[in-house]
Amino acid sequence: MTRHATAGPQLLFVPLGGAGEIGMNMNLYGFGTEEDMKWIMLDCGVMFGGDETPGIDVILPDPGFIEERRRSLLGIVLTHGHEDHIGAVGHLWPRLRCPLYATPFTAALIRHKLEEQGVEGAPLNILPMGGQVKLGPFDLELLTITHSIPEMSGLAVRTPLGTVFHTGDWKIDPDPLIGQTTDESGLRNLGKDGVLAMVCDSTNAFVEGRSGSEADVASSLRELVGKLTGRIAITCFASNVARVLAVVRAARAHGRHVALSGRSMKRVVAAAIDSGVLKDLPPFIDEDDAQFLPPEKVLILCTGSQGEPRAALAKIAMGEHPHVSLGPNDTVVFSSRIIPGNEKPIFALQNALALRGVEVITADDHFVHVSGHPARDELRDMYRWIRPQIAVPVHGEIRHMAEHVRLAKDMQVAEALLCPNGSILRLAPGPATIIDEAPAGRLYVDGAKLSTFEESAVKARKALSFAGICVVTVIMDAKGRMLTDPVVVCDGLPEHAAQAAGEAAAEAVEQMSGGKRRNDDDAYISESVKKSVRRAIQTEWGKRPVTRVEVVRVG
Amino acid sequence: MTRHATAGPQLLFVPLGGAGEIGMNMNLYGFGTEEDMKWIMLDCGVMFGGDETPGIDVILPDPGFIEERRRSLLGIVLTHGHEDHIGAVGHLWPRLRCPLYATPFTAALIRHKLEEQGVEGAPLNILPMGGQVKLGPFDLELLTITHSIPEMSGLAVRTPLGTVFHTGDWKIDPDPLIGQTTDESGLRNLGKDGVLAMVCDSTNAFVEGRSGSEADVASSLRELVGKLTGRIAITCFASNVARVLAVVRAARAHGRHVALSGRSMKRVVAAAIDSGVLKDLPPFIDEDDAQFLPPEKVLILCTGSQGEPRAALAKIAMGEHPHVSLGPNDTVVFSSRIIPGNEKPIFALQNALALRGVEVITADDHFVHVSGHPARDELRDMYRWIRPQIAVPVHGEIRHMAEHVRLAKDMQVAEALLCPNGSILRLAPGPATIIDEAPAGRLYVDGAKLSTFEESAVKARKALSFAGICVVTVIMDAKGRMLTDPVVVCDGLPEHAAQAAGEAAAEAVEQMSGGKRRNDDDAYISESVKKSVRRAIQTEWGKRPVTRVEVVRVG
Repeated sequence: MTRHATAGPQLLFVPLGGAGEIGMNMNLYGFGTEEDMKWIMLDCGVMFGGDETPGIDVILPDPGFIEERRRSLLGIVLTHGHEDHIGAVGHLWPRLRCPLYATPFTAALIRHKLEEQGVEGAPLNILPMGGQVKLGPFDLELLTITHSIPEMSGLAVRTPLGTVFHTGDWKIDPDPLIGQTTDESGLRNLGKDGVLAMVCDSTNAFVEGRSGSEADVASSLRELVGKLTGRIAITCFASNVARVLAVVRAARAHGRHVALSGRSMKRVVAAAIDSGVLKDLPPFIDEDDAQFLPPEKVLILCTGSQGEPRAALAKIAMGEHPHVSLGPNDTVVFSSRIIPGNEKPIFALQNALALRGVEVITADDHFVHVSGHPARDELRDMYRWIRPQIAVPVHGEIRHMAEHVRLAKDMQVAEALLCPNGSILRLAPGPATIIDEAPAGRLYVDGAKLSTFEESAVKARKALSFAGICVVTVIMDAKGRMLTDPVVVCDGLPEHAAQAAGEAAAEAVEQMSGGKRRNDDDAYISESVKKSVRRAIQTEWGKRPVTRVEVVRVG
Repeated sequence: MTRHATAGPQLLFVPLGGAGEIGMNMNLYGFGTEEDMKWIMLDCGVMFGGDETPGIDVILPDPGFIEERRRSLLGIVLTHGHEDHIGAVGHLWPRLRCPLYATPFTAALIRHKLEEQGVEGAPLNILPMGGQVKLGPFDLELLTITHSIPEMSGLAVRTPLGTVFHTGDWKIDPDPLIGQTTDESGLRNLGKDGVLAMVCDSTNAFVEGRSGSEADVASSLRELVGKLTGRIAITCFASNVARVLAVVRAARAHGRHVALSGRSMKRVVAAAIDSGVLKDLPPFIDEDDAQFLPPEKVLILCTGSQGEPRAALAKIAMGEHPHVSLGPNDTVVFSSRIIPGNEKPIFALQNALALRGVEVITADDHFVHVSGHPARDELRDMYRWIRPQIAVPVHGEIRHMAEHVRLAKDMQVAEALLCPNGSILRLAPGPATIIDEAPAGRLYVDGAKLSTFEESAVKARKALSFAGICVVTVIMDAKGRMLTDPVVVCDGLPEHAAQAAGEAAAEAVEQMSGGKRRNDDDAYISESVKKSVRRAIQTEWGKRPVTRVEVVRVG
């Protein structure tokens, strides 16, 4: 932070995650002089690995920048309970050790995250909806806003150099089924008081119109359930408690009993009941009782909408679920969207169900889902209410953020900036400027450890996945006489290629062993054997594996 | 084919590929008695591997069933030139060695496929559009139909037991820009003469309405190009020659010169010109000349719409293209759809472009693409024209085929069957019945070989990609004395885990070496060392790699 130096206090915004990808949101605000900068963090989430990161299920933002400054980190405020906003708390709190702030339902989910990681002693402070908290120079106020999970709060971040409105994830749902509607008058008042910058959700910047309401999905589901005669399974995101409620009501309206299936479904429902978010529910039936009821009396509400292979729905589709079996005349409703990257497993699941004769209903053919993020008309509303001087799109890939910048400019916002992960953006004083870069990257949850891309050996494993490995051990005495055939271990190669490798290694070693020059030179031997083996495999197979040759001297 | 035996001739349909996935289409028709069955094959395509088949780029249907009967295989007719219909010809012709039939442009593309695989001597017979050919008991007639490539033909397959209409891939494009429109009167006449069965494209069975026309995309592109001021790059499927023509015309209308970029783009355009499909084109400029023209005089037509990392567009996005560089005020138009599974690389490409300040236009926000497959209203038209007694959906995943079955039933088709890959469907005599199963599977193009899933070692490579490998070689004399430290080679493990493996192996071997019992038992030693090493890595890393221990006796 040496460029654009200024002597007095500054207001900074530094996204370490979520501004360049969907997921792993981590936003920092800094206020103070260069010598004495205080920080707060808003959200601390994960994203999920896929086929491109083999062996890695969970990915976090690298918190190195703020870890170095953790004595000046006054707290982490969590806007809501989605994994991409709270999932990294359990992993990273031991490195940051600062107070946490969240509303009751969100706190219940965070508590589970902390327990999962065996974290003890994290001070988790409960704020009421609409509550306020002062962290050093930051006066924070929670503003109720709707999303696809209960208890979503945008944050007014008031500082001596101006107010930032940090939206978090949001939509404008006129009837969210659970909780209050968006605090429009609070947002308008904030705008009237003057907002320097709005840091805002870009997820649906390409989507025209409005996201729609949970209440409308609820009526549509009620109508749909009434038309179906066989067994019904509905899958949705467990954290969408309003959707869970809608399904329960749809079932009740048509005399069906609801069985919950899937651990996260049961856990979130329990958290919602405990924290008072869900009230007056009829009792659920046990999964194992569901099979004894007539088909038209049952509705299974289950996890697995993203094609997760171990989730309840995958087991049903494979005929491996201990209690639920579906077939012709039964229906599965995907009350969910496809998270990009999950297309193949989701379609495989739907194909397996269709092959059993199960009817599959999705948001492509029926109105059974609405997004939790603002479409363009909602973004326009928000810009009209808040009227920020500066627009900083976050929560999206670069293409979403770039589109959001264009929309903000159309809305006459004076300054709109593309500010990807690691940008150090000075919001005040002076015009909004990216003054420096913070190190920003990803940490992989790799087994029991957190590791960088380099440390994780993911690149090496991808090489292994392409063409396997051939390990040759050459054993000779001090004088370079071969004491035995080389030991050749191949993995990930077809049988014929492995055989060719074995023969080539033996031949290369035999040639070497015949009292030839340079058989005292391990590096030379190793290189020669490696070349022979790779050439043989290339000829036989057309590909070359990772090849490692070890020369051992015995005696 | 023992069940449901019948003495007289039968008409069979056997899909070996494409009826359960999108791609690798391979359809067999059989006519004759059980003792003397003659076969024809329609289409012989590939599909592409992805992250779930590491190291495998191309996948073919396993032709084993027809290979066993190849002396009765009278020919392969190719309906059109897309990879998923002709891509396997070069790989499989040597196993089948029968005549090939195709129209001129399709034949030009097939010739390239044969050359690519070094296949010589394949008899490639050219049929005119609308032509006829008699192959044993099969009277074949090509019926012109539109698609997203020139020279698409549906096939009337006339046999003594009735006529099948095999649609291939199709749409009803009222103005396809290139070639004739769909031969509606021919299709209606076919229907009037009586069609036993229609084997029909299911790709867009979930899509309401109509697919739209290439001519409408052409006008939209012309208008769009007129509005843009900087450099323009447009990417589309190279085989969509009508789209290529539309882009060329849009450029010409606004005084821009077109440079082709990407090998397949140049190859298809050359084939289209050679076979007379493309005429009267203005000359293209060279890519390296494009950079010397003013931005508003240039349009680059390039490959890479699916995010292919080596394609022209990926190089442009990475700033690595030798001749084309794009930045603010420039535009890239994706005149294409996203093939499912390609979301992540395509979005990564669009993000890289957006980060350079390039505006990215896609079919999500502008009318720049139409599908080549029939939406539901087109399917309904076709059922009205052909009026088959039996509907057999193909070309799709199971979910598409199941939806297509429902649509056919809604259209009052008497029999509509879900008939996945490997079904042996008897179309006549008697009601349509799946009478047996043919072996059907996938062959991987793995390096220079074709292999089954088991032979290919893909499963082993996926295991390697998850947690790497640890290979330990233990070297001892005949009496079980260790002669040296064990040799430990780890790959795909983080450094700290590899180190733990090395220490654990040394310790285990040392304990074993101390004159202990059973040090003459290689299997016991191997198992003990393996256990120690795996336990140590699990403790250190939380995951366990593939572990191989070799015990070698020296002297």
